[in-house]
Amino acid sequence: MFGNTFGEHFRLTTFGESHGQSVGGVIDGCPAGLKVDFEHVSKELARRRGDGIPHTTARKEPDLIEWQSGIMDGVTLGTPIAFIVGNRDVRSDDYESLKDWQRAGHADYTWQVKYGVRDHRGGGRASARETVARVIGGTIAKQLLLQKGISISSEVILPHNREGENGSTRFGGHVKCTVYGLHAGVGDPVFNKLNARLAYATMSIPSAVSFEMGSGNDATSMTGAEYADRWTPDIQPRGANTQPLTITNHSGGIQGGISNGMPVEFSVGFHPVVTQIPLTQCRNLAGEVRMIELKGRHDHCHVPRAAVIVEAMAALAIIDFLI
Amino acid sequence: MFGNTFGEHFRLTTFGESHGQSVGGVIDGCPAGLKVDFEHVSKELARRRGDGIPHTTARKEPDLIEWQSGIMDGVTLGTPIAFIVGNRDVRSDDYESLKDWQRAGHADYTWQVKYGVRDHRGGGRASARETVARVIGGTIAKQLLLQKGISISSEVILPHNREGENGSTRFGGHVKCTVYGLHAGVGDPVFNKLNARLAYATMSIPSAVSFEMGSGNDATSMTGAEYADRWTPDIQPRGANTQPLTITNHSGGIQGGISNGMPVEFSVGFHPVVTQIPLTQCRNLAGEVRMIELKGRHDHCHVPRAAVIVEAMAALAIIDFLI
Amino acid sequence: MFGNTFGEHFRLTTFGESHGQSVGGVIDGCPAGLKVDFEHVSKELARRRGDGIPHTTARKEPDLIEWQSGIMDGVTLGTPIAFIVGNRDVRSDDYESLKDWQRAGHADYTWQVKYGVRDHRGGGRASARETVARVIGGTIAKQLLLQKGISISSEVILPHNREGENGSTRFGGHVKCTVYGLHAGVGDPVFNKLNARLAYATMSIPSAVSFEMGSGNDATSMTGAEYADRWTPDIQPRGANTQPLTITNHSGGIQGGISNGMPVEFSVGFHPVVTQIPLTQCRNLAGEVRMIELKGRHDHCHVPRAAVIVEAMAALAIIDFLI
Amino acid sequence: MFGNTFGEHFRLTTFGESHGQSVGGVIDGCPAGLKVDFEHVSKELARRRGDGIPHTTARKEPDLIEWQSGIMDGVTLGTPIAFIVGNRDVRSDDYESLKDWQRAGHADYTWQVKYGVRDHRGGGRASARETVARVIGGTIAKQLLLQKGISISSEVILPHNREGENGSTRFGGHVKCTVYGLHAGVGDPVFNKLNARLAYATMSIPSAVSFEMGSGNDATSMTGAEYADRWTPDIQPRGANTQPLTITNHSGGIQGGISNGMPVEFSVGFHPVVTQIPLTQCRNLAGEVRMIELKGRHDHCHVPRAAVIVEAMAALAIIDFLI
Repeated sequence: MFGNTFGEHFRLTTFGESHGQSVGGVIDGCPAGLKVDFEHVSKELARRRGDGIPHTTARKEPDLIEWQSGIMDGVTLGTPIAFIVGNRDVRSDDYESLKDWQRAGHADYTWQVKYGVRDHRGGGRASARETVARVIGGTIAKQLLLQKGISISSEVILPHNREGENGSTRFGGHVKCTVYGLHAGVGDPVFNKLNARLAYATMSIPSAVSFEMGSGNDATSMTGAEYADRWTPDIQPRGANTQPLTITNHSGGIQGGISNGMPVEFSVGFHPVVTQIPLTQCRNLAGEVRMIELKGRHDHCHVPRAAVIVEAMAALAIIDFLI
Repeated sequence: MFGNTFGEHFRLTTFGESHGQSVGGVIDGCPAGLKVDFEHVSKELARRRGDGIPHTTARKEPDLIEWQSGIMDGVTLGTPIAFIVGNRDVRSDDYESLKDWQRAGHADYTWQVKYGVRDHRGGGRASARETVARVIGGTIAKQLLLQKGISISSEVILPHNREGENGSTRFGGHVKCTVYGLHAGVGDPVFNKLNARLAYATMSIPSAVSFEMGSGNDATSMTGAEYADRWTPDIQPRGANTQPLTITNHSGGIQGGISNGMPVEFSVGFHPVVTQIPLTQCRNLAGEVRMIELKGRHDHCHVPRAAVIVEAMAALAIIDFLI
Repeated sequence: MFGNTFGEHFRLTTFGESHGQSVGGVIDGCPAGLKVDFEHVSKELARRRGDGIPHTTARKEPDLIEWQSGIMDGVTLGTPIAFIVGNRDVRSDDYESLKDWQRAGHADYTWQVKYGVRDHRGGGRASARETVARVIGGTIAKQLLLQKGISISSEVILPHNREGENGSTRFGGHVKCTVYGLHAGVGDPVFNKLNARLAYATMSIPSAVSFEMGSGNDATSMTGAEYADRWTPDIQPRGANTQPLTITNHSGGIQGGISNGMPVEFSVGFHPVVTQIPLTQCRNLAGEVRMIELKGRHDHCHVPRAAVIVEAMAALAIIDFLI
Repeated sequence: MFGNTFGEHFRLTTFGESHGQSVGGVIDGCPAGLKVDFEHVSKELARRRGDGIPHTTARKEPDLIEWQSGIMDGVTLGTPIAFIVGNRDVRSDDYESLKDWQRAGHADYTWQVKYGVRDHRGGGRASARETVARVIGGTIAKQLLLQKGISISSEVILPHNREGENGSTRFGGHVKCTVYGLHAGVGDPVFNKLNARLAYATMSIPSAVSFEMGSGNDATSMTGAEYADRWTPDIQPRGANTQPLTITNHSGGIQGGISNGMPVEFSVGFHPVVTQIPLTQCRNLAGEVRMIELKGRHDHCHVPRAAVIVEAMAALAIIDFLI
């Protein structure tokens, strides 16, 4: 079980604590010959930072990527691509008061139990800062997919965007993601169904609480006749590419774990930001519970920032089948 | 990508086509010294067959397991445990009319595209018959978990159990699954979060369309204050085991991908049975679409039978962290 | 670490104790569409049994393969190929006297320490009978390689074939193996060098004690000028395929872990049969040492039988790079 | 196949081209709580550089390690340990003349065929500079082994250390490696035998041409009675730890792939340095062959420097069984 590696053929290994020297990653399995679009990578990182989105975290890293290997003159060599992003805007002192305390709703307690030791500064490895490496790796995957005519986009759905009581925001939501241009025949039929890999990939994103394939939960109340996507009749005479394979797409473009050539559609739900400011309930290993004043910097809502991570994880899951 | 293997440390590899010689599996990684409860395995297989449940498939396999290796005098040896279950009640002729046709809503099309060749008899490898091996492997996993005080149970939720139009049943639903007794500290913090592995494991079950962790989609409309599971106050004085760690369990017992010692709760949604009897819309590779009379035998509702498979996959996902 | 699986893309998992129900295996990753040559498989098993070779074991299994899955009408489906070979000629009683004793030079002691329990009958899983599954899996691999114009052959070298003192034979030796037709570019440059994978594959064969690549140990006493395989001059004008790439082949057809298109040559050394008949020195867990009369049936020399296993493991190692 | 990762549980991924930004690696699977001995790491790197050894390469990197993650206050966190070593003393211009030419005996040709593109400067990824990361990863593994009382040492055997003709040195040799303190029961019985993993690990070292376990090739000419390591009699009365388990150690401490508690002994052979100075025979993709003047800097003999790499790979292979 390698918590820090995703993928079997296009493999991303990530490293780095939130307040350590850097976060980064190594991509193994990227083919030689890809001309890397560095500006695209930067733009995707800006989406992750939430540049221009209100209510996002006050921590603004420049996210300067130092590429270490695997690329010469802007072109991939087929060797491992390693990259690091220095942690520059670190205010570790904000977290000193939390050294012996575990915040309610956070991973502080579970991490301490598992490892016995933890980097308490800003969530350590459990921090969402780790997703910087996911976005970089996922963007390289997206560029490989684009070469094959496959693109990924997403829509953020926030039906509850109003202030909650106690200054807490009722502000979770969904990211609805669509993969266009994926040909039929991608995915494995038993354990590594394409839908299972997408669920695996996206449910590993911090704060994800649900995954729905195609019509998802809505499908549970349909009849079989309603749910089964009927073939578009007489498809051949009009040409194979002029109309879709099926009339509806309740299955989200996957049958038996394998893509059918329709758009692949799925949705990921996220719980609201759990950090309570300024006072958060905390517990120490002795079992004492207390309200503690929290400094740090935190989002009001992270769902808009999660969109690019959902896309990145989808790209990583899909490219893994195509390498 | 090994579609036919699940797990990294306790590894189940399954094989067998629906209408071939047998279905079966190999478990690699089971420790030596487990006294196998064979009657328990048989009972779990009976749950999968839907014995005693109305509206389930007319195909009744005796499911006689022939254990090949890894067990001597009823005790595991630490070597691979191989088992086969012969396919006895096979009526392949029922499927001859489907040889060149792909049913709407089924994996026939995607399978044909992927492999170029397929065993058209009863769904071949994509058939739900493959889950026999999951249940056997999962039951061995359950027995190992029970030794550690961990048990898994589930509840079937069918709010829509009424006949639909055209003889089609509105009969999908959910399996709500709970793991009791899992200690804190299980799961990995980044890609192999316990919730991500549970999603991966259960979304690979035929007909699964959604996965929700803890409060799942309900969590997306809560405030952070509502969602964050608050510590039960003053836990120490009354003894560590007399009351739960948190007051609520919206997170489903997992934070940052790692168990916190509370019950692990998740839910899996299933779409309705897609096979339309007696006429089903079919398409051939030439693009012709036609209604074809289908024989075969099929469930009205498979969700009750899916419960034991959800439990089996959860057991496989969890034991993998504990070996 | 899965002691029972070899390969990453063409993956053979083996199971079965020497005196259990069967030995067998599952091949995952074999492409659809291979027309299996069953007679070839039987012939390779006959080579493993040593049919027609003097001094080989008196245990003569018919080695009837029961194919379970993955093949329909003699053609592979792309699904896992499972097979079992029943253990018919089992004389477990021969081993009752050994239940609590560990033979010198055998795996009895190490197995007991590792697992706490063992199937003492005929070596259990550590028995050379396990290699039946390697040969079957390796022969399927060979058939895939043959489709690509790649063939594997070997030569047995027994310079010491004379009777030793005490009825013990001085009869170890080498298997020199050559792979013809492998194109340039196969192998990975760092840890998964083709030579490293061949060493891994063949050093896992029972009794193997040495692996030499190309000129092997002889290379350690050459000058660099002698060892470096010089390019055949002016290769183009005469046509690319009419003469070899290099004049000599000290490297055995591999540079930097990657094949260069020359024949791949390596050698595997085997120690002599360690079983001493009729009396063998044994030890029990209490530390007592005693001479015990051994029944069972054993080879005088196993090197000729090992040749087909060396070829099988080479085939498995190479096909893994080509799938 | 991940050429750039070694290990299943303690996993080292390496990256970096010889003349790129840096070489480095990520260790995943190192337990939390190890107090890293940084000076030990530096000393091992000095052994790899050949500090103080005559006839070694003129390229002297300071090998300053920049630790990126996984260590806080000198103690491992259980998270991935990433490190980079900048390439400072790079004279890429030396290699410009080689851009279109492949040197005889080198990986230039095979690399070009495999990837279509290569970093021609100093061997790129195929350069021995890659072993910097192996030594760092292996030294961390050694420190974990030392905590368990396991140590690794080696001896360099150079029987041919004399100048050859044409200024070429007859200077290959062997590294004989011994692992002390490894308890019985380590290794897997079938494919992942401890000896097979050691062969795999060490045959991936640049220039390795042979692997011998225990008595190795000498064993092929012994009788079974000579080879089988006899039990030391009456071991218990004198205490378990006062005398070795067996009288001889021809098997090198491993039976059936599993350690028996005796010292683990094996030997790795290396071919001589192939780079011919000042003129080396080269070939281009058009098939033209020519003598080219080579600048660069190269060892006369690399075997003494290989010793620490053999030890590092042995440490990586062994720790993988103990995590």
